[in-house]
Amino acid sequence: MVACQLPKLNARVRFPLPAPPPLDATALRTHDIPDPWAYGIRDRVRFHELDALGHVNNNAYLKWFEDLRVSYLADHKVSSLGPGQAQIVLMSQAVRYHAPMFLGEDYIVTGRTTSFRTNSFRMEYGVFRAGHLIASGEAVMVSLTPDGSVKHPLPKTATTLFIERDGATREG
Amino acid sequence: MVACQLPKLNARVRFPLPAPPPLDATALRTHDIPDPWAYGIRDRVRFHELDALGHVNNNAYLKWFEDLRVSYLADHKVSSLGPGQAQIVLMSQAVRYHAPMFLGEDYIVTGRTTSFRTNSFRMEYGVFRAGHLIASGEAVMVSLTPDGSVKHPLPKTATTLFIERDGATREG
Amino acid sequence: MVACQLPKLNARVRFPLPAPPPLDATALRTHDIPDPWAYGIRDRVRFHELDALGHVNNNAYLKWFEDLRVSYLADHKVSSLGPGQAQIVLMSQAVRYHAPMFLGEDYIVTGRTTSFRTNSFRMEYGVFRAGHLIASGEAVMVSLTPDGSVKHPLPKTATTLFIERDGATREG
Amino acid sequence: MVACQLPKLNARVRFPLPAPPPLDATALRTHDIPDPWAYGIRDRVRFHELDALGHVNNNAYLKWFEDLRVSYLADHKVSSLGPGQAQIVLMSQAVRYHAPMFLGEDYIVTGRTTSFRTNSFRMEYGVFRAGHLIASGEAVMVSLTPDGSVKHPLPKTATTLFIERDGATREG
Repeated sequence: MVACQLPKLNARVRFPLPAPPPLDATALRTHDIPDPWAYGIRDRVRFHELDALGHVNNNAYLKWFEDLRVSYLADHKVSSLGPGQAQIVLMSQAVRYHAPMFLGEDYIVTGRTTSFRTNSFRMEYGVFRAGHLIASGEAVMVSLTPDGSVKHPLPKTATTLFIERDGATREG
Repeated sequence: MVACQLPKLNARVRFPLPAPPPLDATALRTHDIPDPWAYGIRDRVRFHELDALGHVNNNAYLKWFEDLRVSYLADHKVSSLGPGQAQIVLMSQAVRYHAPMFLGEDYIVTGRTTSFRTNSFRMEYGVFRAGHLIASGEAVMVSLTPDGSVKHPLPKTATTLFIERDGATREG
Repeated sequence: MVACQLPKLNARVRFPLPAPPPLDATALRTHDIPDPWAYGIRDRVRFHELDALGHVNNNAYLKWFEDLRVSYLADHKVSSLGPGQAQIVLMSQAVRYHAPMFLGEDYIVTGRTTSFRTNSFRMEYGVFRAGHLIASGEAVMVSLTPDGSVKHPLPKTATTLFIERDGATREG
Repeated sequence: MVACQLPKLNARVRFPLPAPPPLDATALRTHDIPDPWAYGIRDRVRFHELDALGHVNNNAYLKWFEDLRVSYLADHKVSSLGPGQAQIVLMSQAVRYHAPMFLGEDYIVTGRTTSFRTNSFRMEYGVFRAGHLIASGEAVMVSLTPDGSVKHPLPKTATTLFIERDGATREG
């Protein structure tokens, strides 16, 4: 097969349903998830996230961080991935594993911005099970213009939330 | 790499949290999902389920059916996949696509047993978005003893539910 | 998170490397894969394709069929998924499982068109391990114009190959 | 669904086929991959590894590292994941992205051990396309006894290869 270009996306949302809000700081505290976490999504381990060792595959956690990130960035008006929206490019990510997870377990994945510059920011992630931290992650991202040609400043509304809600530090 | 054996699983569930029940017939009716569907799980399209064409990948639906099936089989006491539990082997599956799905859309995946014999059964699946059927699936399974050596009859409690709740037909 | 649109793709292939040709009829015969299979790709089971039951997950086979299909459609000039290319929409697919597969095993996935109409076609797939058929699949597809608005006839060069190489039947 | 235990694996390899050796140092040099990389696997980007942005998903690289690692650990006699084999637990991993990748591109994923202690070791990974480094990764692992109860020393044959072939440093 030859390497090939892909088509323009023609994704159209046909039934935009009302979505339940993610867990905010108040809701997270009731699940024993400490300050300063202020954005979380509750979910449960699925069969297809297990690997042949019988526990959640190491890479499944990174999908959880990714899904959390996509939701967080849309909710914070950084980018909803749509036409005319900023391109958010992942520069690096890392994860540490503190305990294994198993089929059917409930967990909450959390995310917050810890620091930012004009065009880039760093997020941290957590996976909590019954109030215990099971895995920790981080990612560094750059914001580009919609065509990806140059850097694109983070919106003021987002950086204000980063500071006030997440306790983020402005750098540079 | 040489082909190799895999280890015994030593999966242990350490924090078995109370799980919300799946949607039953009454709950499904409130979402415009018709009789005789009586078992469903509500979820939302994640970023990692999209493919390069910008909509939900064709194979993602089969993961949804699989996750529904694992939950259904445990709840119906057919098998919870654990030691001493029946092995449920998938013989075949099929899916028809009626419309594309997109990021962030809410859906309900449903499952029911349509027919069964002593050691085998056939399930149907549906994916509903705002009361519209988006994809349909089916699967044929065989029940084996825990060691997989011979066929293992479906438990009477399960087949009773298949008939009374799902409207299944006994065959053979 | 709100449902959202996705961006235009700006995928550019920067290092289009020469790709090894897939296995043709002659090569497949040397692997004990019978006539009329004439297009195959050799591969090996990866760790991430196993599930918690220790064998290849049922849905992994459908990824193999998909990857085979993408390559086959590009090589037969039906569509390479790029701008200005026909949209190929999967209407349905099915798979039957004949034996389990395990980590590190070599296999060949094969595909051929069995029948076609002006704007649609049906493919069959096989997974062979040491000359034995392990799984069988099929899929029905429709060809649309690049913008997806109307049906788009299959190119004559493709349908000729379907007949002469795959033994396909023209219908309708 | 209740959280549940999983069965003992009864994975048996039925057709252990001869596997092509991975690329060694000599082969890697012919692909412009520099010293000290001495273990690599050649592959090509599949459709299912792309995400909705049209390029290889960020997490796909970590699957490549995982598959490389499983092969590497078996070939270096650290563990082949089988009964009676050491359990290798991933403590952390990280990845940096240097350029995007696209459908159909050929690449080589490489792995080497950079340092080790009695019961733990650190690996680095690379993804090369046409001799250019596209992504870099690292992982820290601990070796446990087959039952996972206590730490298990790395075999002498492995640590000798780590030093002589990969240029690893013994620590602690």
